[in-house]
Amino acid sequence: MTMRRSRWWGWGDEGKSYHIPDPERFWEFVRSRLGPTDASPRVESLERCELRPSRLPASILAAFGSVAGNSAVLTSNTERAAFSLGKSYRDLVRIRAGEVPHPTDAIVQPQTGDQVGALLDLAAREGVSVIPFGGGSSVVGGVEPESDGHVLTIDMAGLSDVAKIDPASATAVLGAGIAGPDLERQLNAAGFTLGHFPQSFEFSTLGGWLATRSSGQNSTLYGRIENRVESLRLAYPGGLLATPEVPAAAAGSDLVQVVCGSEGSLGIITEARMRLARLPAERDYRGYAFESFGEGVAAARELMQRGFHPAMVRVSDEAETESTLAMRPPPTGIASVVESAGRWYMARRGIRLESAAIMILGFEGEKVSVDHQWSEAKRVLSGYSAFSLGGGAGRAWQASRFEAPYLRDLLLDHGILVDTLETATTWGNYETLHAAVRDALSTALGERSVVMAHLSHSYSDGGSIYFTFLAPQERGREVEQWERAKVAATDAIIQHGGALSHHHGIGSDHLPWMESYIGSEGMQVLASLKTALDPAGVMNPGKLLPRSQGASRG
Amino acid sequence: MTMRRSRWWGWGDEGKSYHIPDPERFWEFVRSRLGPTDASPRVESLERCELRPSRLPASILAAFGSVAGNSAVLTSNTERAAFSLGKSYRDLVRIRAGEVPHPTDAIVQPQTGDQVGALLDLAAREGVSVIPFGGGSSVVGGVEPESDGHVLTIDMAGLSDVAKIDPASATAVLGAGIAGPDLERQLNAAGFTLGHFPQSFEFSTLGGWLATRSSGQNSTLYGRIENRVESLRLAYPGGLLATPEVPAAAAGSDLVQVVCGSEGSLGIITEARMRLARLPAERDYRGYAFESFGEGVAAARELMQRGFHPAMVRVSDEAETESTLAMRPPPTGIASVVESAGRWYMARRGIRLESAAIMILGFEGEKVSVDHQWSEAKRVLSGYSAFSLGGGAGRAWQASRFEAPYLRDLLLDHGILVDTLETATTWGNYETLHAAVRDALSTALGERSVVMAHLSHSYSDGGSIYFTFLAPQERGREVEQWERAKVAATDAIIQHGGALSHHHGIGSDHLPWMESYIGSEGMQVLASLKTALDPAGVMNPGKLLPRSQGASRG
Repeated sequence: MTMRRSRWWGWGDEGKSYHIPDPERFWEFVRSRLGPTDASPRVESLERCELRPSRLPASILAAFGSVAGNSAVLTSNTERAAFSLGKSYRDLVRIRAGEVPHPTDAIVQPQTGDQVGALLDLAAREGVSVIPFGGGSSVVGGVEPESDGHVLTIDMAGLSDVAKIDPASATAVLGAGIAGPDLERQLNAAGFTLGHFPQSFEFSTLGGWLATRSSGQNSTLYGRIENRVESLRLAYPGGLLATPEVPAAAAGSDLVQVVCGSEGSLGIITEARMRLARLPAERDYRGYAFESFGEGVAAARELMQRGFHPAMVRVSDEAETESTLAMRPPPTGIASVVESAGRWYMARRGIRLESAAIMILGFEGEKVSVDHQWSEAKRVLSGYSAFSLGGGAGRAWQASRFEAPYLRDLLLDHGILVDTLETATTWGNYETLHAAVRDALSTALGERSVVMAHLSHSYSDGGSIYFTFLAPQERGREVEQWERAKVAATDAIIQHGGALSHHHGIGSDHLPWMESYIGSEGMQVLASLKTALDPAGVMNPGKLLPRSQGASRG
Repeated sequence: MTMRRSRWWGWGDEGKSYHIPDPERFWEFVRSRLGPTDASPRVESLERCELRPSRLPASILAAFGSVAGNSAVLTSNTERAAFSLGKSYRDLVRIRAGEVPHPTDAIVQPQTGDQVGALLDLAAREGVSVIPFGGGSSVVGGVEPESDGHVLTIDMAGLSDVAKIDPASATAVLGAGIAGPDLERQLNAAGFTLGHFPQSFEFSTLGGWLATRSSGQNSTLYGRIENRVESLRLAYPGGLLATPEVPAAAAGSDLVQVVCGSEGSLGIITEARMRLARLPAERDYRGYAFESFGEGVAAARELMQRGFHPAMVRVSDEAETESTLAMRPPPTGIASVVESAGRWYMARRGIRLESAAIMILGFEGEKVSVDHQWSEAKRVLSGYSAFSLGGGAGRAWQASRFEAPYLRDLLLDHGILVDTLETATTWGNYETLHAAVRDALSTALGERSVVMAHLSHSYSDGGSIYFTFLAPQERGREVEQWERAKVAATDAIIQHGGALSHHHGIGSDHLPWMESYIGSEGMQVLASLKTALDPAGVMNPGKLLPRSQGASRG
């Protein structure tokens, strides 16, 4: 079966582009902040990439073919180019320039878990590095080969079965290669949802979510992906780890939580038995404007600590609110809603919507539960400077929930650096970390830049912070410019006690900070796991762990 | 500081005994099932235990003293006896007979995490095995020394600080040695609760809960103990693992979930930053009678899958309902409530309360939320053959929630074998597993026995099963008789896909089944963690992992 793939030079369907409701206002705002920028062309097609030839000997390719079938082994330049980069800013800069400096040597497309296991055994024996490839949407360098050695990419799209839906237990066994829309369509038909909607939803896979500890837009209700796993199977060189199918246990370290987040460094997740939720009968998302980001965050915190279960509570800081309103006035019109209802109040208190902090709060479930939660939530919000923007703001957010990556492509076309990064911290440290990272990014990018953030995932003890930043590209030094910002932001995150990543993962991009983050003792624990399952050191080397740690290559 | 300790020959305060509301009825029921039993005496005092002498050389004892202070090193026979067994049935049989076959050689009582670390370094260097001791309430052999080698028990009671309560983040840093009542008293004073109430609550510690993946009576709402940890510190020989203080992260395997459940085999948890909940304003527990256990379990399942958040949903099977009513009629009178309200209905449908399945369902939180959940829950329950027993049944359960272990002592005095064991499985497999374990226990114990069970912890995908079983003791063969039942039940659990333990842990008692349960691959992962952190193999050897796996002793 063929999986729908993201276009090679950016995000999503080849023909789809970001719809700007009011282009004049959009570009006026962008130019007012970034000044004029130069269009940034891209090479016409993947065929234009000049790749070094595949270095895998024919005998090894034949062996792979004998496992998965000869037609399952891909070695053409375009295929190798398409499977050698993820979707980070750095990846897009390079692929648009036709640069794939470290191409994989071959791609194999297995159809079963047994084939995956046999491929790993073979790779370990031959000293071939293996990179698992799900949707290829990594933004942290998770699927890019290292510079040296033989590399095989395993495309997991063939393992996409939805099997054994167990309605009594509300679980299903899902192939790791299944992508979001395919998965939801089949579960929805049985009355269930997995409830997992990362921004990459359309083009990412269950296996990728599990391997990177993905968190989705509704994870505040449904839980992070690692909380929805009942059991899983991990193929590794020489073995298969299958965890017990039980709802909970007190039997040693949690093996599921050892595998989740391992980013292909231990083996490849082939399938998982996932906890499902009933399809919600009601979804009710609404907007609120707060006087300040601090107020909005405090309200989100209070909701969580009072035991509410929102499907989403997202709070944009003042900069993001302003940019959002300027760049994408929602079709149903936040402005018009506020015009009639709230602007008068806000003006009386000296607040402009453009300098407020917008919250989108949503509840999902049975209607009576959603109504109850809303009536109680309103009582909590009434304790803050919160102005209702109504359901239009919520619907506008829902309609555009997977669109941001398309906007990135458009901005890139116009020579604009645009990237995101994220972290999480305790509520007590939230404001400090937000300011520190914001300031680090602003300083690194200079005056002609926009740095904005939002809270997207809330817990009782803290929340995530998701930054978006824009600046005119420094032509010819695009990657160095980005690295400067990335290093400044990540240094600030570590220095101020934030999570090295809340849901993007580590890959190769965050690796330099891993030891500062979890300590040499934490690194030792991760390395010991790698040594146990991948003594040959072939599993996604250079991701999560430096190659020297754990195992050396066979 | 001195910790309140459970009496040496059983459970709880020395002077406290189980209050039987109606002794005549109680003993009549017991005798009707078990026949006559002989009183089982116990030795008068711990001094009567004949212990082999401490085998630790004076030089090593002096070295421990130089770390923690000489007065912190205990070597008297009574102290060594008191710290060498847990509270399993086998432990009580032996201690009541004055038998402590494998006594520890010394106990050290450190006051700080640094002292714990120094003690572990020293122990590893000298090849002394270390057993961490919290409340000593293990029912799976978790604190008993192995037969050979030098053994040091580290009493963690000195590390009992409640520090850094962070009201904004709703977290506190708690010393691992703090016991339940002390912890709750201090958190309650600040408006918080940890919400963790295992049956051992009065005499068990945070460190013990974490090391064994404890689950409490309200964990269906507050989460298992491992879900309430934000970060923790693990002292191990030669190092200290301190996990980042963040609410969530995507940065490799979850180190907290590696440490939780490690049962002292990797190191000793010295402190943890725990997520707190606001003290609930309202607690509303009520009883329901169902036609059958299957009906009650189905109702619990539906509540969970509809997204309810009960503080407790506990369903007793028919045998447990009958025994409970016969052995302990609640003071406020389930019978009288039903007399007036439900018995007529039940009789009309041919149901006797004594052959029904009683559910205790409770909600906690803000009053408006509790009221809302109750009104919706009643709607769900109306779809079943559920008869309300009112709030009296709920209050009766709450009043006696920590009393079962006291009853065990009383039954032991009368020569009755009484023990519990537990598992968990998916809803789809629930009835099968319940029947299989029940039948295995009944067969192993013979006709003169009572085997009963309840559901105590529910998840969206499954629930726990907690068995209690009684039989007349086979005098002189008490341990063999118990082992026969334990083996039969555990074989049935593994054969039918249950969790080897839901919340008691592995210790030495469940170890023989560990490999069947998680596979040789799972054992390899656990062993690799041990090799990394405890290469000398001194940390609680023979618990969780066979000594041959992982490391050999230095």
